[in-house]
Amino acid sequence: MAEVRNKQVVLKDYVSGFPKESDMHIIEGTVILKLPEASSEVLLIKNLYLSCDPYMRILMTQGASSYIPGSASHSPLTGYGVGRVLESGHPDYKKGDLVWGITKWEEYSLVSSDQTLFKIEHTDVPLSYYTGILGMPGMTAYVGFFELCSPKKGEKVFVSAASGAVGQLVGQFAKLAGCYVVGSAGSKEKVDLLKNKLGFDEAFNYKEESDLNAALKRCFPEGIDIYFENVGGKTLDAVLLNMRLHGRISVCGMISQYNLTQPEGVTNLANMIFKRIRMQGFMVSDSYNLYPKFLEFLLPHIREGKVVYVEDIAEGLENGPAALVGLYSGLNFGKQVLLVSRE
Amino acid sequence: MAEVRNKQVVLKDYVSGFPKESDMHIIEGTVILKLPEASSEVLLIKNLYLSCDPYMRILMTQGASSYIPGSASHSPLTGYGVGRVLESGHPDYKKGDLVWGITKWEEYSLVSSDQTLFKIEHTDVPLSYYTGILGMPGMTAYVGFFELCSPKKGEKVFVSAASGAVGQLVGQFAKLAGCYVVGSAGSKEKVDLLKNKLGFDEAFNYKEESDLNAALKRCFPEGIDIYFENVGGKTLDAVLLNMRLHGRISVCGMISQYNLTQPEGVTNLANMIFKRIRMQGFMVSDSYNLYPKFLEFLLPHIREGKVVYVEDIAEGLENGPAALVGLYSGLNFGKQVLLVSRE
Repeated sequence: MAEVRNKQVVLKDYVSGFPKESDMHIIEGTVILKLPEASSEVLLIKNLYLSCDPYMRILMTQGASSYIPGSASHSPLTGYGVGRVLESGHPDYKKGDLVWGITKWEEYSLVSSDQTLFKIEHTDVPLSYYTGILGMPGMTAYVGFFELCSPKKGEKVFVSAASGAVGQLVGQFAKLAGCYVVGSAGSKEKVDLLKNKLGFDEAFNYKEESDLNAALKRCFPEGIDIYFENVGGKTLDAVLLNMRLHGRISVCGMISQYNLTQPEGVTNLANMIFKRIRMQGFMVSDSYNLYPKFLEFLLPHIREGKVVYVEDIAEGLENGPAALVGLYSGLNFGKQVLLVSRE
Repeated sequence: MAEVRNKQVVLKDYVSGFPKESDMHIIEGTVILKLPEASSEVLLIKNLYLSCDPYMRILMTQGASSYIPGSASHSPLTGYGVGRVLESGHPDYKKGDLVWGITKWEEYSLVSSDQTLFKIEHTDVPLSYYTGILGMPGMTAYVGFFELCSPKKGEKVFVSAASGAVGQLVGQFAKLAGCYVVGSAGSKEKVDLLKNKLGFDEAFNYKEESDLNAALKRCFPEGIDIYFENVGGKTLDAVLLNMRLHGRISVCGMISQYNLTQPEGVTNLANMIFKRIRMQGFMVSDSYNLYPKFLEFLLPHIREGKVVYVEDIAEGLENGPAALVGLYSGLNFGKQVLLVSRE
């Protein structure tokens, strides 16, 4: 019964405002590499990659929404990751399997049977993809764009946080659907990425636009049919002024608001009435039944190079806090991943 | 070819802020009671009832949304009404028919063939009902509640502006659907009406609640499944905090915002994500194909007294401006109608 080191990233206390690296610390404990008996924890896994996702900020707030399993103060962060099964008490998994799903920010985790978990069947693509394009963010883009917005050829699509884990896929999916797509991002390099590598028709740096409404009017002289919402606040307000009749808004995230103690007010909602706009909030976890269909759709595109994915990989659990905190000031260039172990 | 007096209610100029009676004036012209030849105007009608509706404020703003036919400055207001056909150049209508639809605020109107117009087939109910329960507001309640919110028995429904033309029906429809329903209104008398005559389970006077969030928590300890939005602003913000998972919001109107030069900001939209909330703006004019089905559903309920309707009837075109302006300070008690002529 081997006892090994188990490094963990732990929240010191609940966070208000922008999270800082110093809100977390690294602790080194030990773990016995054996499943506890008579427990709901049925898998012992070694974490290989951890996913840095914007929603994680919400779990750091005291009294956070009860709809997401919380990272209680003084326990390791929870989040998505990719791991190797070391021991299994569940008939669907065996030692050596690769899995992705909800895990903890530590080297070794016990996973209970009621957590989101998928066996990884295809390893001809990078394993880290299961934290991004082939994991939760990929499914989020797929469900939020195709299922909720029912895009039609020729429609005009706007994506905010467009170079992020989800946005870069929404843009590429929009092109596959025959749409015109514009993205906003927070640096010249990201804008170049959108236009030159990811196939967006147009893109702009929202930090350089003094008038978001004018920027949208420039990119969408005929208005926006579909908005994939990742940021909230001022961007949503400007979008509402530029939506077309029967427009659809998928509300995936509002990263610009998560760190504000007083969120920005959205003032243009009355546009929803005359323009018959539908706004739909969603959590991808409701749609994981579509995962096989999603893989069947996306894997060939990845293999043929028709859909690409940009990752920003930090290495080592001790660099996790910086990687996570960086999301909220846009330091990540593409999907932010944390490599925990090369095995 | 009779030439008769044609009194009209005309907007003096576009309005900003709260409309005042003095923004309109009554002018007396004359009209020849004959259809013009070779014109798109195919009906000459005598207006009997005119409908005072909150959306009309929006038409008074310069640069108003192009999705509604505008009341240009210095021409009579446009709006819904009930009239008698005096002359018809359209095969579907004949002299003497009663109709409801879009008309003008004047005694006699020419109606063109592309305007919303329905022949009135059932006259065993008050004719004024075709400006309300059996007209646009009735259809609005029907479509916004049944079609967009798909209510299920036992669900919890909140309606704002609940004693108004639309709200009083949404509440009664919710009871027919086996829901629990709470309404908000702006006076003790209206709250009493909701509870004692219209069958609401609970009601509150929003003007007497210092904390709308607390008022909603008191009425909905388990949260709100369906919100029928008539007011916007602070009420919507408090509702978002109290919605349940998979809640639906029909966005019918935002009367609290129409007169503000700077609308109130809505800060709690991020709740849409975790609660998977759908907000759907709509205009009933898209759903007039359902009118026969609606009549079939509602007429028996009216005849059996199972659905009632409260009207506030002003008399005479010259009292139209006061009746209309009164909507925005909640002076109306039930549906505000203007009786133009008893024939």
